[in-house]
Amino acid sequence: MTARAAVILAAGQGTRMKSPIPKVLHKVGGRSLLDRVIDTVQASGCERIVVVVGTHNPAVRELVETRLGPQAVAVQDPPLGTGHAVLAAKDALADFDGDVLVTNGDCPLLRTDDLEPLFALRAEGAPLAIMGFEPVDGLLYGRLIRGADGHVIRVAEPKDATREELAVKACNAGMYVAGAADLFRWLGKVTNQNAKGEYYITDIIGLATAEKAVVRTHIAPESSVMGCDTPMQLSQAEAIFQQRSRAHFLAEGVAMLAPETVHFSWDTEIAPGVSIEQFVVFAPGVKVETGAVIRAFSHLEGAVVRSGALIGPYARLRPGADIGEDAHIGNFVEVKKVAVGKGAKANHLSYLGDGTVGAGANLGAGTIFCNYDGFDKWETHVGEGAFIGSNTALVAPVTVGAGAYTGSGSVITQDVAPDALALERNAQAEKPGWAARFRERKLAQRAARKAKA
Amino acid sequence: MTARAAVILAAGQGTRMKSPIPKVLHKVGGRSLLDRVIDTVQASGCERIVVVVGTHNPAVRELVETRLGPQAVAVQDPPLGTGHAVLAAKDALADFDGDVLVTNGDCPLLRTDDLEPLFALRAEGAPLAIMGFEPVDGLLYGRLIRGADGHVIRVAEPKDATREELAVKACNAGMYVAGAADLFRWLGKVTNQNAKGEYYITDIIGLATAEKAVVRTHIAPESSVMGCDTPMQLSQAEAIFQQRSRAHFLAEGVAMLAPETVHFSWDTEIAPGVSIEQFVVFAPGVKVETGAVIRAFSHLEGAVVRSGALIGPYARLRPGADIGEDAHIGNFVEVKKVAVGKGAKANHLSYLGDGTVGAGANLGAGTIFCNYDGFDKWETHVGEGAFIGSNTALVAPVTVGAGAYTGSGSVITQDVAPDALALERNAQAEKPGWAARFRERKLAQRAARKAKA
Amino acid sequence: MTARAAVILAAGQGTRMKSPIPKVLHKVGGRSLLDRVIDTVQASGCERIVVVVGTHNPAVRELVETRLGPQAVAVQDPPLGTGHAVLAAKDALADFDGDVLVTNGDCPLLRTDDLEPLFALRAEGAPLAIMGFEPVDGLLYGRLIRGADGHVIRVAEPKDATREELAVKACNAGMYVAGAADLFRWLGKVTNQNAKGEYYITDIIGLATAEKAVVRTHIAPESSVMGCDTPMQLSQAEAIFQQRSRAHFLAEGVAMLAPETVHFSWDTEIAPGVSIEQFVVFAPGVKVETGAVIRAFSHLEGAVVRSGALIGPYARLRPGADIGEDAHIGNFVEVKKVAVGKGAKANHLSYLGDGTVGAGANLGAGTIFCNYDGFDKWETHVGEGAFIGSNTALVAPVTVGAGAYTGSGSVITQDVAPDALALERNAQAEKPGWAARFRERKLAQRAARKAKA
Repeated sequence: MTARAAVILAAGQGTRMKSPIPKVLHKVGGRSLLDRVIDTVQASGCERIVVVVGTHNPAVRELVETRLGPQAVAVQDPPLGTGHAVLAAKDALADFDGDVLVTNGDCPLLRTDDLEPLFALRAEGAPLAIMGFEPVDGLLYGRLIRGADGHVIRVAEPKDATREELAVKACNAGMYVAGAADLFRWLGKVTNQNAKGEYYITDIIGLATAEKAVVRTHIAPESSVMGCDTPMQLSQAEAIFQQRSRAHFLAEGVAMLAPETVHFSWDTEIAPGVSIEQFVVFAPGVKVETGAVIRAFSHLEGAVVRSGALIGPYARLRPGADIGEDAHIGNFVEVKKVAVGKGAKANHLSYLGDGTVGAGANLGAGTIFCNYDGFDKWETHVGEGAFIGSNTALVAPVTVGAGAYTGSGSVITQDVAPDALALERNAQAEKPGWAARFRERKLAQRAARKAKA
Repeated sequence: MTARAAVILAAGQGTRMKSPIPKVLHKVGGRSLLDRVIDTVQASGCERIVVVVGTHNPAVRELVETRLGPQAVAVQDPPLGTGHAVLAAKDALADFDGDVLVTNGDCPLLRTDDLEPLFALRAEGAPLAIMGFEPVDGLLYGRLIRGADGHVIRVAEPKDATREELAVKACNAGMYVAGAADLFRWLGKVTNQNAKGEYYITDIIGLATAEKAVVRTHIAPESSVMGCDTPMQLSQAEAIFQQRSRAHFLAEGVAMLAPETVHFSWDTEIAPGVSIEQFVVFAPGVKVETGAVIRAFSHLEGAVVRSGALIGPYARLRPGADIGEDAHIGNFVEVKKVAVGKGAKANHLSYLGDGTVGAGANLGAGTIFCNYDGFDKWETHVGEGAFIGSNTALVAPVTVGAGAYTGSGSVITQDVAPDALALERNAQAEKPGWAARFRERKLAQRAARKAKA
Repeated sequence: MTARAAVILAAGQGTRMKSPIPKVLHKVGGRSLLDRVIDTVQASGCERIVVVVGTHNPAVRELVETRLGPQAVAVQDPPLGTGHAVLAAKDALADFDGDVLVTNGDCPLLRTDDLEPLFALRAEGAPLAIMGFEPVDGLLYGRLIRGADGHVIRVAEPKDATREELAVKACNAGMYVAGAADLFRWLGKVTNQNAKGEYYITDIIGLATAEKAVVRTHIAPESSVMGCDTPMQLSQAEAIFQQRSRAHFLAEGVAMLAPETVHFSWDTEIAPGVSIEQFVVFAPGVKVETGAVIRAFSHLEGAVVRSGALIGPYARLRPGADIGEDAHIGNFVEVKKVAVGKGAKANHLSYLGDGTVGAGANLGAGTIFCNYDGFDKWETHVGEGAFIGSNTALVAPVTVGAGAYTGSGSVITQDVAPDALALERNAQAEKPGWAARFRERKLAQRAARKAKA
């Protein structure tokens, strides 16, 4: 296979997003647009990747440097058009002579299956391959105009297009594959002799055609090449991502009562045989093993749910929650950085933060791991088979031994020995008739207030 | 501009709604249908508004009197048709000689942008302007039949219409603008010589035409003029309201992961730069400032969320919650009538009702403001930088001073001095081996029960 | 009326469901596909029902035996085609000479309204009546080919069909009605002389036609006859079930703000005049009386909500919850096997499991019924008009008398007399300046750590 490289254009301001966050750092499926494009071009075998960034978005540059290293950054300054942007990557690819893919960095739904046919056209000998799509609403997109031989000869922008050209369905998706030498040679010839005084990458089509180089095109689904310039488009991309994810998991044998109410992230892993109820959110970093059941209104993030575990309804698993086989995490229970052992249960109104829960332990309603002292976080360890009475506050650092009990309503500040009962409580006192007298006094006050008013 | 008035028809029984609540008091976007129509006609510059009510719906009359005063009420008794209903408003407008808009009171999606063209037709000289729409399903609607000059000459009700008339797409939306004198003069001539013995407002079209008065029409979107006669239509109107709201906030720069799962109210205020996750409900009276994040499964009503605050997931903000800059309200936390200071946190399983929380205070999991004694509500005040230990019950009225700590599991009934530690707790006791003996006894009992059975 | 019987085919492996659960035991609207088909054929007056099961799905056999008795089971072993499957029911119907309906067991949306026209064709004299439908995508379905007289003469499977035959819209839904004698006689003549070597029930059409028997057809909606072979189809069936349910309840006068976010079960009972907010799940076994309000994010299962009660938001009612008239169950409150009396309230962060709550009682935030000791469940009884202070743990078995109070944060282990106040608490202690010193020490530690690092 010819070596592959990618130039990703990520210098755009993205002002239409009306957000302080740079456009390509907005997320779909919990992952930034740019990361998603990088994921895809890496999966397509691009061994060299150059991201063209602007000077006004240090966060974009930082992402690229962190993920790909400083050599992957090319700075376009000032911004003088798409052709100018790609040229900014020329030096970084000076020693590369394979095929170069050019793509925008705001196409979160692009898949290797969409790119492969483009690379294939190049492999079949086309000096330039350009991605097309047939938009439902072509208002804004340049038409791919073909010559007599059926090959693309130029892009007609809507404002300059004739009525016949406007009737062409195939539009320019802004993705190209060409040999590195050709690409940069053509780009070197592009001029800014146009209304906006910009260097357009689309001009390379005419330059290629002028050299008798054949320009071929592959038509991708609109969903795959859509860009995200506005919050509306971003939400549309997210919706398509979710549809794809739901269809994928259904096809894999994940049972969903109402898939349209389940939201996934890019890296969600769910095994066949898992069952998911309505209104569930999988934020990034979740893995669910077979046989687990995720009940309604649950929110999972950075968590592992092991085989046969029962989660929710209304469970919140936060990063570091590791719910063991057949364990139960019930309603209004939050788990963070806690490994919950096999068959353990925390079914009601509890906060488990930082620590471990042994296999078969039972945590009563209202159990709280008091993990924070205002400055540091401390750990709580509940032993195997321990029984934590309802409304127990476990003040970390603290360990409850295997098989131990704690009395309801206790504040446990010291370690509890295995098989012991720990209790923090006073004697129950009773004031006979107090409530009756209280009620009388209150009612009298109320009557007095009314009389005054 | 010619003076404008509106006659709103709200006397209908609304029996198809199958509800004890009068039809026009049902809500869309958290606001009654009638209030929404009044909002719109007020925004359109109608300086006089008369609402025609029936005798069987005192709650409708009460709404009108409270909002617009008693002079805004006209009673139709008994109900003898739409024309008769408008005539009921004649006396109230006796001294008015501008343009009168007639509309139904159950059109919650009507906008000033829909009404303006109707008033404009009148301003251009048309004695009568009638709102049309082109319904997807025209089964039930009267067709706007035009004469040779292109102007409307009558309304053909479906049951009386010829096949040619039924093919007319434009239908009568039941909204009219005419000069006051013309309107009431025509209505005075309407008769009840028809099958139902009712006075139909549509007859004024023929009467106007007979006077050679031109009747012109403006076609509004079906969504804008739809009425709500049934629970199904009400839910459709609500769905359209939500679509409009979502598109509006997206266009304003509010980021939404899944806008189709976010529900707004008529008065929701959300600044650009706010981020909203899945499954969020904004009940009436909510204002969110820029940079705030509303996480999944949150429910807000009558609350203010200030810049940079983080709400949810699973947070419930009730009326009077005022969440300060950069403050955090986390999962399973309810806040009512509490001002939470800048940077303060209540992240888990808490109830904050009636009081204040100082800037930078930290409320541990399970904190409860015990605000109710069965008769009265009392306030809790937590000072700046205070640290409330987990599972603390703060029995109001009570004040925790700035910088003070409370021990986990304490019931705080007396004020706590600044920088002090308050504690209500007993010594932890331990009964070694108790749990092992308890288990043995229980297992023996279980075995005995099984043996018996 | 001619006697009716049904043969339900439920022997299929259902491997495309990719699930260890047999296909017909998957659920729509909370009820298994097979149970739903049995419900429908019973409602259609089938007095005899035979379910054909395979040998590999004991759970299916068990369902049939439990619900209909052992005589309702016919075993097909080995599976040799649909015709062979129906023949397996022959012995069980040996003494039956009425009309027999043959249907698949995976059609959860089939209604009596769909079956009645098929039985009617038979009653009008057609020896064989076959259900047709017009699928949006007919790729996989056999076409119903008609002869010159307009009657069905055979089924053309897509792989064998001519282009003309493929253009036929009516497809075979796999449901038949015939006289018992005819049916089994035809089936006896079916051969396995085909590519797969199977006995196809569709062959009876040709056999009937060969006898000059007229085969008539009724076209049912695709939704009614759709089968569920894959998780995707199952979720589509569930979606249609929910659409039907929502339309049904809206038409009955149940108010829903956003019906598309409300999920019902097959047996949900909701009276007119109930109001339901967004994001609500009705799992099986729920009954809601008029005037009740179900607020957002609530989950109900096996529960009764009586007239005027207010549930949620974020309420979870579990089996055995019986919420009395005008009672309130508020946010983050779970109720299981508890009868809550008229006007009683549990509005915040509570767990009520096993017991009773008297009329007018008020349960403060954080109330917990400690019903489990690790082995057995015990009951808690709160008397009429009692007031349970916030964060009270009621350790069952325990009874709080009518009109009694419990102090906030108490652990109540002994019965409380009516009108008494019960309290379990220590004196509040205060350590002046402790928090200030703690902070200083912590900050010093932090500084030291930083200095080291």
